[in-house]
Amino acid sequence: MGPGEGSTPEQNELAYELGAAIAKENWITLTGGRAFGVMQFALKGATDAGGLTIGILPDATPQTASPYAQIRILTGMGSARNHINVLSSHVIVVCGMTPGTASEVALALKANKKVILLKQDDLSVEFFKKIGTYQVFVAQSVAEVMGHVRDFVSLQQIQ
Amino acid sequence: MGPGEGSTPEQNELAYELGAAIAKENWITLTGGRAFGVMQFALKGATDAGGLTIGILPDATPQTASPYAQIRILTGMGSARNHINVLSSHVIVVCGMTPGTASEVALALKANKKVILLKQDDLSVEFFKKIGTYQVFVAQSVAEVMGHVRDFVSLQQIQ
Amino acid sequence: MGPGEGSTPEQNELAYELGAAIAKENWITLTGGRAFGVMQFALKGATDAGGLTIGILPDATPQTASPYAQIRILTGMGSARNHINVLSSHVIVVCGMTPGTASEVALALKANKKVILLKQDDLSVEFFKKIGTYQVFVAQSVAEVMGHVRDFVSLQQIQ
Amino acid sequence: MGPGEGSTPEQNELAYELGAAIAKENWITLTGGRAFGVMQFALKGATDAGGLTIGILPDATPQTASPYAQIRILTGMGSARNHINVLSSHVIVVCGMTPGTASEVALALKANKKVILLKQDDLSVEFFKKIGTYQVFVAQSVAEVMGHVRDFVSLQQIQ
Repeated sequence: MGPGEGSTPEQNELAYELGAAIAKENWITLTGGRAFGVMQFALKGATDAGGLTIGILPDATPQTASPYAQIRILTGMGSARNHINVLSSHVIVVCGMTPGTASEVALALKANKKVILLKQDDLSVEFFKKIGTYQVFVAQSVAEVMGHVRDFVSLQQIQ
Repeated sequence: MGPGEGSTPEQNELAYELGAAIAKENWITLTGGRAFGVMQFALKGATDAGGLTIGILPDATPQTASPYAQIRILTGMGSARNHINVLSSHVIVVCGMTPGTASEVALALKANKKVILLKQDDLSVEFFKKIGTYQVFVAQSVAEVMGHVRDFVSLQQIQ
Repeated sequence: MGPGEGSTPEQNELAYELGAAIAKENWITLTGGRAFGVMQFALKGATDAGGLTIGILPDATPQTASPYAQIRILTGMGSARNHINVLSSHVIVVCGMTPGTASEVALALKANKKVILLKQDDLSVEFFKKIGTYQVFVAQSVAEVMGHVRDFVSLQQIQ
Repeated sequence: MGPGEGSTPEQNELAYELGAAIAKENWITLTGGRAFGVMQFALKGATDAGGLTIGILPDATPQTASPYAQIRILTGMGSARNHINVLSSHVIVVCGMTPGTASEVALALKANKKVILLKQDDLSVEFFKKIGTYQVFVAQSVAEVMGHVRDFVSLQQIQ
């Protein structure tokens, strides 16, 4: 999860790298599905690496969908779809931080999902650790993200 | 789309056959994703034939999901997810008729989607033809369904 | 519940009369909230008679809301809001029949709500009686609708 | 908006006072509608002061509704209803901070709504000011909240 508009080049690169790493594990990459920002780059990274991708779109029609969202779920319900994003994910990885992204982190914590904050500033980490302590993990690199997720899997902490 | 509970053995067989036919075209089978009835049998037919399947579940957790729903979208929004089912589908094929199924047909017509009524009784056909004339098609067999869909594709009536 | 666009003058008059009758009982009139058709006339009838009205809008902003929707719930989720309409109502009265309206009747039956079909043609009555028998009532006038609802109240069939 | 479970007595008192202040202006108090925590106390404060209250419930049935939610919108969609809460509000006042509450603040900022953080710790204020600067206001008392809202009204910053 991460910004659509307003993502930085560094965030886009991280998202691309993350999508590729997820694909190499034969896991599925799910994002908000639009054709820009972190959503787009994560889906592209996964697609380029031969992985399966899902986009859960806020829109009722596919015009705004990323071409790298191989499976497109059209919700027609705007940001209410953020709740579907987090319920449908086993682990939420967060790259960049806008209001939409923050809502996904908060909804994920509310739903008792594990959240990995990737290269987030101290303020965001502190805030989310305060409201959702034991489900919040931090990572400074995609390798560190993948290490966390492999731990969750081997400890059967996600189903 | 079709009944979960209360589907007949004939409807289940038709759903299984339909899922298999969709898979053979390399198309994706999408249902409400629960582990019984038409939802379950369509997903099983598609899976057995090597196809990709999606279940859009009304629940927030995966316990009720069909094992044949390879991709599980957890909406946590009960029957409001019926709207997502129809928006996310290119063509809606309907086998069996319960209130939940009828809501999907009606929402599909509202969203200007094509609906194929498979082996429906005259009353259902007449009703839906009356409220959604030119988008409603009928079929008495899976072969006839697939003929309709191939026509839509070749005429570029679905995108 | 009833058509927005495409309602007939007779349906609009019935909706107006119904809203007024609901208001006179000090009950609340709830519709889809838009500024035209049956939605609009029911809200206007209730407002003119001094009643409280609620509009559950498909939109995220209030521009399309009926001026007679005193309370405006903005869902931003299109026709998925039809499910909220029926869950939030004690009794669903249906005047006119379009795909959107049919989806509300079907969702209401799925949610075990009582539905009164007001001046509907035989085909609609037969269809909904077939899929939701004992929850479906018919009425040829607003007086008959109100009689049904008073019965439900006195028999404590709605809470 | 604020915590259901886990709210502090001080937060409950503030919520009660806030509901009463809103009622005295003849404004409407809208919360998540459940029978505990900040939701409950804001609705009770408003009701005791003669105001109108709305609860937008995550549930499909009214059993969990606060008795002080005079109007109950049953969404049946869990935390996805948080988006409806913020879209339907003119101003969001936040008292207490849990993941659910944080999701509402974030969704409100995403929807360009004004948010007033009432007696929040520095960390929460800093975090939300960072992701949604000019829409975020702070208040240390209910009086200060009401001052902000009156300003918004007189400056026609909310419609």
